[in-house]
Amino acid sequence: MLDRLKNHITQNFPFLENKKLLLATSGGLDSIVMARLFNQLDYAIALAHCNFQLRGLESFGDQNFVQDYASTNNIPMFLTQFDTEAFAKDYKLSTQVAARDLRYNWFYELLETEGFDYVLTAHHADDNIETFLINLSRGTGLEGLVGIPAQNDKIIRPLLLFSREEIANYAKENKIEWREDSSNASDKYLRNKIRHDLVPLLKELNPHFIPSFQKTQSYLQESQVMVEDASIMVYQQVAKQEEEGIYFDLNQLRKLPNYTSYLYQWLHEFGFSAWDDIYDLVESQSGKHVFSAEFRLLKDRDSLILSPIDLEANSEEEYFIDEGMEDVKIPLNLSFCKVDDIYIPTNTTIFVDQEKLEFPLVLRRWNDGDNFQPFGMEGKSKKVSKLFKDEKLSLLEKENVWILWSGNKIVWVVGIRQDERFRVDNKTQNILKIELE
Amino acid sequence: MLDRLKNHITQNFPFLENKKLLLATSGGLDSIVMARLFNQLDYAIALAHCNFQLRGLESFGDQNFVQDYASTNNIPMFLTQFDTEAFAKDYKLSTQVAARDLRYNWFYELLETEGFDYVLTAHHADDNIETFLINLSRGTGLEGLVGIPAQNDKIIRPLLLFSREEIANYAKENKIEWREDSSNASDKYLRNKIRHDLVPLLKELNPHFIPSFQKTQSYLQESQVMVEDASIMVYQQVAKQEEEGIYFDLNQLRKLPNYTSYLYQWLHEFGFSAWDDIYDLVESQSGKHVFSAEFRLLKDRDSLILSPIDLEANSEEEYFIDEGMEDVKIPLNLSFCKVDDIYIPTNTTIFVDQEKLEFPLVLRRWNDGDNFQPFGMEGKSKKVSKLFKDEKLSLLEKENVWILWSGNKIVWVVGIRQDERFRVDNKTQNILKIELE
Repeated sequence: MLDRLKNHITQNFPFLENKKLLLATSGGLDSIVMARLFNQLDYAIALAHCNFQLRGLESFGDQNFVQDYASTNNIPMFLTQFDTEAFAKDYKLSTQVAARDLRYNWFYELLETEGFDYVLTAHHADDNIETFLINLSRGTGLEGLVGIPAQNDKIIRPLLLFSREEIANYAKENKIEWREDSSNASDKYLRNKIRHDLVPLLKELNPHFIPSFQKTQSYLQESQVMVEDASIMVYQQVAKQEEEGIYFDLNQLRKLPNYTSYLYQWLHEFGFSAWDDIYDLVESQSGKHVFSAEFRLLKDRDSLILSPIDLEANSEEEYFIDEGMEDVKIPLNLSFCKVDDIYIPTNTTIFVDQEKLEFPLVLRRWNDGDNFQPFGMEGKSKKVSKLFKDEKLSLLEKENVWILWSGNKIVWVVGIRQDERFRVDNKTQNILKIELE
Repeated sequence: MLDRLKNHITQNFPFLENKKLLLATSGGLDSIVMARLFNQLDYAIALAHCNFQLRGLESFGDQNFVQDYASTNNIPMFLTQFDTEAFAKDYKLSTQVAARDLRYNWFYELLETEGFDYVLTAHHADDNIETFLINLSRGTGLEGLVGIPAQNDKIIRPLLLFSREEIANYAKENKIEWREDSSNASDKYLRNKIRHDLVPLLKELNPHFIPSFQKTQSYLQESQVMVEDASIMVYQQVAKQEEEGIYFDLNQLRKLPNYTSYLYQWLHEFGFSAWDDIYDLVESQSGKHVFSAEFRLLKDRDSLILSPIDLEANSEEEYFIDEGMEDVKIPLNLSFCKVDDIYIPTNTTIFVDQEKLEFPLVLRRWNDGDNFQPFGMEGKSKKVSKLFKDEKLSLLEKENVWILWSGNKIVWVVGIRQDERFRVDNKTQNILKIELE
């Protein structure tokens, strides 16, 4: 086994030579065998053990075991403890996903802080077969069948070519001790059934099932990369990043008979799950939207617009600006400055007659009934909503607009249009320049 | 079952209304149940039965059974008999593939000649599950897992939503008779094992396994279409159709880390199978090639060139041209014509002094040692191979060149350069114009 591993590394991971390796070590059969093998291969290794505190004393037993193993064999060891349940609850994750996230985040941290080059995990061939069959039995997509890759950035899985049986035999021959792993408890029935009934049946149908399966999975991985290629190529044709969010051009998108597949590919990583609603958006009227936990997908004319939900946003918010304040930072960067002369006002800079203002000024979101007298229109009144329409603002842009009020009069539809009533005239004594940065 | 089928058709195949349907009918459980169902739904149907003559008397028993069924129920029937083994041998196909090709070709023929709109086949849900598992056990790619689609052009499979059990129950309740199908004999052990052991195990793991699996397969089908999308998009960037074949631009191709996946996608339908050799071609020297039964992939500088093998081509071929012949059709379209005056010779039109020629002229492929005296080079001799190099001809272009000989002298490297020795001079009495069309 040592020789096969050596060959395997030379052929597939030649870059590991002389590198500092961090071995993920739970204390179970696979990770202890991996530690033993790499120790024998004379790599500069260290062990990293996470105590997820999911199995009470047992978890600490595992931790002690790995600590003993490391000190007996003179291998440096890193240890951390997580409150996995709390983390899972906070981030609304399954325990399994929480543990995985915590684990890999910590590994990447150690790579940085301790100067390791790669992390090694002890996944073996049967892990991939079992996960494939579990996912198949439950229903899955291509991503559930491709298996865990032999390399993923800085994570290497050098034991993927070995079966559980080979690893167990090696441990037996070499009198290696390990901790029985009782994790994956929720999957236990399923995993055992698959391990003891399903996989043997497949091996009966084809004595070379494991290598055949490894080929199958490598083909599926190739297909998966091509799916991602297609996803990226079509994204580049259809999507455009704007300030308010990502715009998907529906006229382009609808040309593809399978556009729902692409929407799925692009959006599932933003946490969306109401796929039928999303697919309906494409043909729905403007203004409809679908939410994920943190994102919103909005139909607006010929686009779908993906934007983060501003979790702080509240249309009732008001911000007060006292006389003499020079800078406002929240909710917008505004500066107030007395000037002697006026220049031509722009979208982002206006000049007002200070004496006409009623302090404190108020910044507030707009409402449907808001009216103002647009600068230069000789005192004619106009609805703010009509202004937005004329300016062809998207729904998202509209939502982002703030209004500067003086009493019950609008001073400025910020960034868009000044009100006539506060403009500087020939009676003005103090000119106030207000600027949006 | 009739109602579910009716709903299924209304929802998924509304276009079947009032259409003429041809039902593929082997005489087995599934196809007879399908015939019964569609007969009851009052469609204009006819049965089509292929006798593949693979199981002797049994095959004729099936044929008789379907004939009886059709006449008893007053359904028109079409019948054909194939010598499947001979066809398989001729085209080097497996019996199963041969039978499938024969069957579907005949169905398409009937659609045309008999004015049917669609062909219906009786595949059911378990067929897809079993094929999936067979392919999985043997090793496969995505294409082996996606299953047979519910619609494929003019072929509809309306029973895919039913399980074998449902179909069998329906037959029992309605006292329907059928012929036990003993086909798929080569798969029989495998299929039975999967049917009786593997599938029940998966249903034990998930009581809703069949609908979950159908979802899985529809996701995989979506991925498969995206793989094809990627394949087409990259092909458009990398491939160019030229007269001699399809050129794949290696400088473009090498930019893709997964270019071997694309080569596989593009080339497997041309019958290639030596994938490692093909992938090696990308970095090999010019002139190396890999063959499939009918195609050749040639490395030539920065391209791979895919072209049909000219099975007739033979470098030993010679074609003779007697004095006075006006037209040659094979191997090239050449015309010979006496003219009074010479014009400027071009690549495709030359003027020669008829008296200098030694008839019959001969058309022959070029050989490495061939020398000639290029027109306009004052009698200097040059190797034909050097000419090709100077003209930057690709390997395929070189192979397509013909040489026109007079005795042991070259008159014309056809389409490229005339020889000096046969040119018209001031002593010429008869000018012969030779033109390549």
